[in-house]
Amino acid sequence: MGITIVAVGKIKKDFANAGAREYRERIQRFGRLEVMVVQEEKIPPGRKLTAGMKRQVLLREADRIRSRMTDSGRWFGLDREGRMLDSDGFANLMGITMRPGPMGFVIGGALGLDPDLKSKDLELISFSKMTFPHDLFQVMLLEQIYRGWTILERHPYHK
Amino acid sequence: MGITIVAVGKIKKDFANAGAREYRERIQRFGRLEVMVVQEEKIPPGRKLTAGMKRQVLLREADRIRSRMTDSGRWFGLDREGRMLDSDGFANLMGITMRPGPMGFVIGGALGLDPDLKSKDLELISFSKMTFPHDLFQVMLLEQIYRGWTILERHPYHK
Repeated sequence: MGITIVAVGKIKKDFANAGAREYRERIQRFGRLEVMVVQEEKIPPGRKLTAGMKRQVLLREADRIRSRMTDSGRWFGLDREGRMLDSDGFANLMGITMRPGPMGFVIGGALGLDPDLKSKDLELISFSKMTFPHDLFQVMLLEQIYRGWTILERHPYHK
Repeated sequence: MGITIVAVGKIKKDFANAGAREYRERIQRFGRLEVMVVQEEKIPPGRKLTAGMKRQVLLREADRIRSRMTDSGRWFGLDREGRMLDSDGFANLMGITMRPGPMGFVIGGALGLDPDLKSKDLELISFSKMTFPHDLFQVMLLEQIYRGWTILERHPYHK
């Protein structure tokens, strides 16, 4: 039982690595968390991608994501168009999901997530209408998971 | 002309200071940005505050915020219940606001912002329904300001 995050692409920025480490450590006291990174497709900077090329990138990344998704449990995709939750709602979703089984989150790459993966394999939730960089977003997700656990366990949130 | 951020309380976490520095440096190429910190009211950890005490904290912080708000320009408060924008909408708001004058943002403290300040002195915008820590939120705001400027100036977003 626990939480798995599948993220497309490594965190590159030092501050985001430090932030992710901070919240991963805090989460340890509450439960098991595993972060799995799948390779992102290289997109040459400044290169204009056609719709077909974008589809190919998303399809290849979706294959790698699926290979890490276990059959059991519920899998959530983080997507701007997903269901918006506040922090209590997110904590509640964690509680409901983890009672019967594991819980997984998928963070897409620079182009987001493949439409087919989103419609068939994931339940979509949204943190914001805004686009955030992958690195910073992983810190935001880990912080909400930590916060969710403090809410579920009625544990004080350490600033 | 430029952007001012008034934040209640200093950033304490190293990773968030590093993240804020990263985006402040990136923003410099586009325009003037000033971050002003006003003192937060000390709340003893674990102390249960009455509604009256909370009101007092918010009132004192609101006085300090107002003392930093210039008369010119438009001032926006970051509040979960504010108007939700996507990144293009936020960039557009930056463009529209900064054509005639300066633009300011207010980030509240641990208890948020005083209701009177919100209703009379600020236009409220929302990044998320979720609650984020003050430190991390400042990084999120700076990242969106950087992103907004890249959108307005059609400048590539550096990952």
